[in-house]
Amino acid sequence: MEIKVIGIKNIPLIKKGDDLSQLILKSADSQNIKLDDGDILVIAETAVAKADGNVINLKNIEPGKQAYNLAKLTGKEAELVEAIIEESNEIVKVGPDFIICETKHGFVCANAGIDESNVDKGMATPIPLNPDSSAHQIRKKMEISTGKKIAVIISDTQGRAFREGAIGTAIGISGMEPLWDRCGEFDLYGRELKTTSIAVADELASAASLVMGQANEGIPVVIIKGISYFDKLENDKATINPLIRPKKYDVFRD
Amino acid sequence: MEIKVIGIKNIPLIKKGDDLSQLILKSADSQNIKLDDGDILVIAETAVAKADGNVINLKNIEPGKQAYNLAKLTGKEAELVEAIIEESNEIVKVGPDFIICETKHGFVCANAGIDESNVDKGMATPIPLNPDSSAHQIRKKMEISTGKKIAVIISDTQGRAFREGAIGTAIGISGMEPLWDRCGEFDLYGRELKTTSIAVADELASAASLVMGQANEGIPVVIIKGISYFDKLENDKATINPLIRPKKYDVFRD
Repeated sequence: MEIKVIGIKNIPLIKKGDDLSQLILKSADSQNIKLDDGDILVIAETAVAKADGNVINLKNIEPGKQAYNLAKLTGKEAELVEAIIEESNEIVKVGPDFIICETKHGFVCANAGIDESNVDKGMATPIPLNPDSSAHQIRKKMEISTGKKIAVIISDTQGRAFREGAIGTAIGISGMEPLWDRCGEFDLYGRELKTTSIAVADELASAASLVMGQANEGIPVVIIKGISYFDKLENDKATINPLIRPKKYDVFRD
Repeated sequence: MEIKVIGIKNIPLIKKGDDLSQLILKSADSQNIKLDDGDILVIAETAVAKADGNVINLKNIEPGKQAYNLAKLTGKEAELVEAIIEESNEIVKVGPDFIICETKHGFVCANAGIDESNVDKGMATPIPLNPDSSAHQIRKKMEISTGKKIAVIISDTQGRAFREGAIGTAIGISGMEPLWDRCGEFDLYGRELKTTSIAVADELASAASLVMGQANEGIPVVIIKGISYFDKLENDKATINPLIRPKKYDVFRD
């Protein structure tokens, strides 16, 4: 199997109300990239947040008492901390320079996923309100325009426990299951796999991140071609939820 | 930027003493794949463990008292638990069906990374003794054979805190830095990046995992072509250590 991970160039800076599906198709077309059945689009969450107009002006936020306390503990601005609190179900861990939260969606990540890069100074982008729904809308429009069966993943760059460095991570999906449960299949020696379940959507987000970059590359959208098992994962009703481990099963939550 | 992730087919089942570099080059050649400067090879750790002869026969292990206790707690075979203990610096967390350890290398992962798939029944493969050294030896032989500057990553499939499903993860590297520190660079709006450090080696391992598969695909080696920033990360002396978060900085360790 060979897959191709292709960055879509020339996507303009995204503004509130932009139709991402049409911007992507236009830019892909200018690069002579055609969508095929089974292609997977990975879109950086910042692009979705901007198109949705889901951008916070930190100057307009009035921090509460908890925000001032956490700001002191972490060295972060109180306005940013208030925004983090408002985006969270729960504060999971706090340290000298970080706040790890469970977001309203159920993701455990630093700063509730609020991003201050690639937006104007003083602004920040929280994780889109409903990344699955954003992915679904973009996919449906693209499928209508092209007649092709595709999948869309919304990605974020997130840190991890135990390991340094951030990696591309899936936070929304449409058109395919994010998790490939291979239990019951057999290995090369005919041994039945008992526990093998692969977070394919996260691996796709990481593959896309290699091409997107995080600085001034200006490539918020990547097309992945050649995933031969796409049909095994295809599902019109899929959501990101199978990737979220419920708190009661997570041994690293208090 | 466009990258290609190509599975090397027709690699025979690997036996102790096999020269992986020559097996890979021969199989790549049979597929008409030529190595170029800047190519990155990702090799599944099971292939390295087998070539090294680092395969455990669980029947030959005599469990100690701690192993019997942990076997009862976890429902695992005492022989496997003893092997896990022997591979570990520390047992990090234990639950009804898992043992999370810090391996001798410093990786925090389930079962100390001991794998029971794709080996004969009753056998198991621990993480190679020194994955960086294995990667280095393979790279040097391939560079001599081909005259090309490449990098080699040894990969494993590992679970994560907070998220379901396993993903491809780098456990050894040679020829390039595993972490890309982009602090000091600028985003699209000219804002300086303060914290962006990307675990490129893990993203490459995840991209490779999309092609390798985990069952009977028989693709333990993947070539990634087209990483345009290869020269920024190139380093003959690089190790995997920058990806390992020291225990004292990890907020999810007791």
